[in-house]
Amino acid sequence: MSIAEAGEFGLIARIVARLDFGTASLLGPGDDAAVVAASDGRVVASTDVLVEGRHFRRDWSSATDVGHRAAAANLADIAAMGASPTALLVGLCVPVDLDISWAEDLAAGLSAEAAKVGAGVVGGDMSASPTLTVAVTALGDLGGRAPVLRSGAQPGDVVALAGRTGYAAGGYTVLSRGFRTPKLLVEAYRRPEVPYEAGAAAATLGATSMIDVSDGLLQDLGHVAAASVVGIDLHTEAFEIPGAMRDAAIALGVDPFQWVLGGGDDHALAATFPPGVTLPAQWRVIGGVHEGTGVTVDRKPWQGGTGWDHFR
Amino acid sequence: MSIAEAGEFGLIARIVARLDFGTASLLGPGDDAAVVAASDGRVVASTDVLVEGRHFRRDWSSATDVGHRAAAANLADIAAMGASPTALLVGLCVPVDLDISWAEDLAAGLSAEAAKVGAGVVGGDMSASPTLTVAVTALGDLGGRAPVLRSGAQPGDVVALAGRTGYAAGGYTVLSRGFRTPKLLVEAYRRPEVPYEAGAAAATLGATSMIDVSDGLLQDLGHVAAASVVGIDLHTEAFEIPGAMRDAAIALGVDPFQWVLGGGDDHALAATFPPGVTLPAQWRVIGGVHEGTGVTVDRKPWQGGTGWDHFR
Repeated sequence: MSIAEAGEFGLIARIVARLDFGTASLLGPGDDAAVVAASDGRVVASTDVLVEGRHFRRDWSSATDVGHRAAAANLADIAAMGASPTALLVGLCVPVDLDISWAEDLAAGLSAEAAKVGAGVVGGDMSASPTLTVAVTALGDLGGRAPVLRSGAQPGDVVALAGRTGYAAGGYTVLSRGFRTPKLLVEAYRRPEVPYEAGAAAATLGATSMIDVSDGLLQDLGHVAAASVVGIDLHTEAFEIPGAMRDAAIALGVDPFQWVLGGGDDHALAATFPPGVTLPAQWRVIGGVHEGTGVTVDRKPWQGGTGWDHFR
Repeated sequence: MSIAEAGEFGLIARIVARLDFGTASLLGPGDDAAVVAASDGRVVASTDVLVEGRHFRRDWSSATDVGHRAAAANLADIAAMGASPTALLVGLCVPVDLDISWAEDLAAGLSAEAAKVGAGVVGGDMSASPTLTVAVTALGDLGGRAPVLRSGAQPGDVVALAGRTGYAAGGYTVLSRGFRTPKLLVEAYRRPEVPYEAGAAAATLGATSMIDVSDGLLQDLGHVAAASVVGIDLHTEAFEIPGAMRDAAIALGVDPFQWVLGGGDDHALAATFPPGVTLPAQWRVIGGVHEGTGVTVDRKPWQGGTGWDHFR
């Protein structure tokens, strides 16, 4: 059945049936607005848009995959503030000839990804549009903690990473050359594995700054360096390149560090911590903060790619 | 300058310069997420999407107008819960050849409309897209009040309206026939005048149900009737048709009640109150609630239009 045949309210009913509202939802979909718990009197909020052909392709990712990724991109922003995600709202723009199952599967993916952190999809809006577009807003709860900003890094701090980088970029390159393997990279592109809990944990551990790595480690740490008015140096020996990534990179003639340092979309969390802090295994030290500006790699300017501009 | 020339971060910087973050914003744009006050431990949240060619036309509305209307549509949803709006987040999808001034003016309109209720634009995201799309999420604060749902109307209640209906629909019809006057209607289509404060006031007055009239009075009250399992009857003599609307309707061969009862986009608030409540002048009684189902007009089924389906 196409979305035009189902009609707006038919589609909404079928989608709402796919959703889990989460534990923080005091009032879910169906009224003018949702009501979500914000236990400490503050709410953390972030919005991301995904546009077909730019952020996803229907021949590369299933609707469920797109749902997972759209949710992950937003939930990671909440985690990067040191907060726990509580709810998603979704604005969905769909071509009228789209099969209704695509929208249903998208909702299932969004809901499943949110459920990983106990969050729910509590509301949204839909419209017909020539361009398939998913706009997601995530809400979160700091649980009494101070938000971890981009601007608090201090010279002498260590730079640490939770989660993976380069996997999704590798998967994107593989898919764009017409291949479907290695699965490790392709699956990482389709559904990022985000270390959500590491965000709140970092806040508790005393992280001085934190950011969601969505545009590439060098570009995103560049934002931290600029906001904190410090320099950051990364150590390549801290990164382990998995065999499947190295093999794919060789086969495609790519430096794997271009993926690891320049690729986005894995939604790792990068944070700075005071020197001497004992970090749990989830956090791996990958560099240090010094007086200065910008981001260097092994004390030298990086010559490869450094992330991407969504308008170029 | 086109958006492609400005680049993503150039555009963001220019837009953030146009924004007012509002009094509830504890952390505005520039980090992974915003932090907004939610004083009573709950946050009200709603999302609406506006798509060019479907919700607005650039030859009918300025970018500032579109900003006002996109904000109004969302802020009205918050007000319809009995809450006070606190913040907006905006997902903006723009063609790369769009002039940057359009995005700046949109931001100015969003910010100005939000400022009417002391709310601010605290965050957002941007992407290139073939289809100009504005996705807005509004947050609000119930101030300790219970949310006013669609499901609480009781037989014997009065139905009351705050704000206008039919003006925006009249303006839409006028513009679609190639005219630019009467100004009363055209301006109402471009920038709705929403009685935001009436929402929280209704909650305090004991409203048993409330809804934002965005799709047309009959359709939206139909949602209230269905959710509350009651019937609603509207009294046409309660509506005053302004002279400019009547004249335009006659000239265009339209029944003005088709606009008043069936037209959306003015974002009036419709609510039900217990019988005997004394309503301030802002609220006008337009009908009553009875045992039964559906919405009638002067005790008869309405034969005209009853709102619209966004997918047809």
